[in-house]
Amino acid sequence: MQARAEALRAEGQTIAFVPTMGYLHQGHLSLMREGRRRCDVLVVSIFVNPTQFGPGEDLDTYPRDLAGDSRRCREVGADIVFTPARDSLYTPEFQTYVSLQALPNHLCGLSRPVFFRGVATVVTKLFNIVRPHVAVFGMKDYQQLIIIRRMAKDLNFNIDVVGAPIVREPDGLAMSSRNAYLKPEERPAALTLYRSLQQAQRMVQDGERDAARLIAAARGLIASHPASLIDYVRICDPHSLEDVTSVAQSALMALAVKVGAARLIDNALLTPI
Amino acid sequence: MQARAEALRAEGQTIAFVPTMGYLHQGHLSLMREGRRRCDVLVVSIFVNPTQFGPGEDLDTYPRDLAGDSRRCREVGADIVFTPARDSLYTPEFQTYVSLQALPNHLCGLSRPVFFRGVATVVTKLFNIVRPHVAVFGMKDYQQLIIIRRMAKDLNFNIDVVGAPIVREPDGLAMSSRNAYLKPEERPAALTLYRSLQQAQRMVQDGERDAARLIAAARGLIASHPASLIDYVRICDPHSLEDVTSVAQSALMALAVKVGAARLIDNALLTPI
Repeated sequence: MQARAEALRAEGQTIAFVPTMGYLHQGHLSLMREGRRRCDVLVVSIFVNPTQFGPGEDLDTYPRDLAGDSRRCREVGADIVFTPARDSLYTPEFQTYVSLQALPNHLCGLSRPVFFRGVATVVTKLFNIVRPHVAVFGMKDYQQLIIIRRMAKDLNFNIDVVGAPIVREPDGLAMSSRNAYLKPEERPAALTLYRSLQQAQRMVQDGERDAARLIAAARGLIASHPASLIDYVRICDPHSLEDVTSVAQSALMALAVKVGAARLIDNALLTPI
Repeated sequence: MQARAEALRAEGQTIAFVPTMGYLHQGHLSLMREGRRRCDVLVVSIFVNPTQFGPGEDLDTYPRDLAGDSRRCREVGADIVFTPARDSLYTPEFQTYVSLQALPNHLCGLSRPVFFRGVATVVTKLFNIVRPHVAVFGMKDYQQLIIIRRMAKDLNFNIDVVGAPIVREPDGLAMSSRNAYLKPEERPAALTLYRSLQQAQRMVQDGERDAARLIAAARGLIASHPASLIDYVRICDPHSLEDVTSVAQSALMALAVKVGAARLIDNALLTPI
């Protein structure tokens, strides 16, 4: 892959990169289309990265479908599907990690302490192998997107890190490979994430600016379904991820809720106008 | 620099890189000659990297001589001297670090806890900016060399990390920019580093294999000069840097000694034959 990427660059071709853990859904396909649109060559990686899973998380059960994924990549016009073996990216001597000091100390970083270190590390590795000009990440994983963007700047990667909008099921559930864990009877509880974001947006439109009241309303809506277990509901600065007390300016509402075996996340900008 | 490097690579030119903190001496020049020999283009960086200095260390007093350094680079045939400003490499938002889990927990890493994190971070940044095919590091900083080599492999940098032999003053003192801190009357104490390495090599030649006895002899020689303050004297595995008890196989003897304002390091392989 690295030799191929260097050869493509030497020919003057531009490379767009979409790193994924596979089990591709319409959200991933939208990232690929965004990459396809921006560059000559589209590379998609499929790698379930062990260093971003904590103990007791779903590394071993993470859903996989390489045959279906390859077909989906081909349909969207990916030129290269890169599927490294775990042992080739992590040898027994491996010991180098990329970590950030501030951005992971919020939201998902609090409940998943090794997650963003694992993500920043594997993305650094993949950036060095795939050598892209553009890399596309989904805004559902908002914290991941801004961490990768910060990391790319801080480590002087000359890569445009692009965020692509959340893609939702017709009923509003944000697309995620982990939605595969949901049982049909858990669907109503899963839908409370998006509904609580919409409710907050309506409240802001109606003049509410107090973050505590917006959060309390969201928590109330989610908790009305006994199948849902709230990890966090936050309203924060979209750049620093620090909590804000008021939605005087655009703020990010972000939530993580456990529904059965699935830990679901979602987010939206709250914009006072 | 990054645009220039990309353009050179696109033309098919190979790039050798020697990262330095300036105040260049014959040791640096030997690294440059090694790089010059191996590639089409030689890039030398001069940057006193703040993130590798701990509190109370000599960041502010580190010797500088940019005019003399530029002349020396030209004489050795460097094509580009890269001297980034501190603020351009470290913006106020900077928060991403590269660190290793095991190799820094030995030798200099114990007395300089942030040092190797700072080195691995700035070298990652410089690798991304200079985009070299080959990078040359001195073996006086042996631990740094193998940390960078490990880091380059772990993060999938496609860069050949080359180690170049220690260059010494006629009296045996290993060349170092920090030798500038030595007062003339401290020279005899500074020379005990190399003499104790030579003594250990003679003892091994004469059949001694016991690491504790080799270390005791070195400590005795160094301590015979009251101006010297031992930080460490170790004999370790040259790959893992773990202490060894016997020089049954090649082992690295490494020492760090404070002489006046200068913290000096030196090392040698002890090879039983």
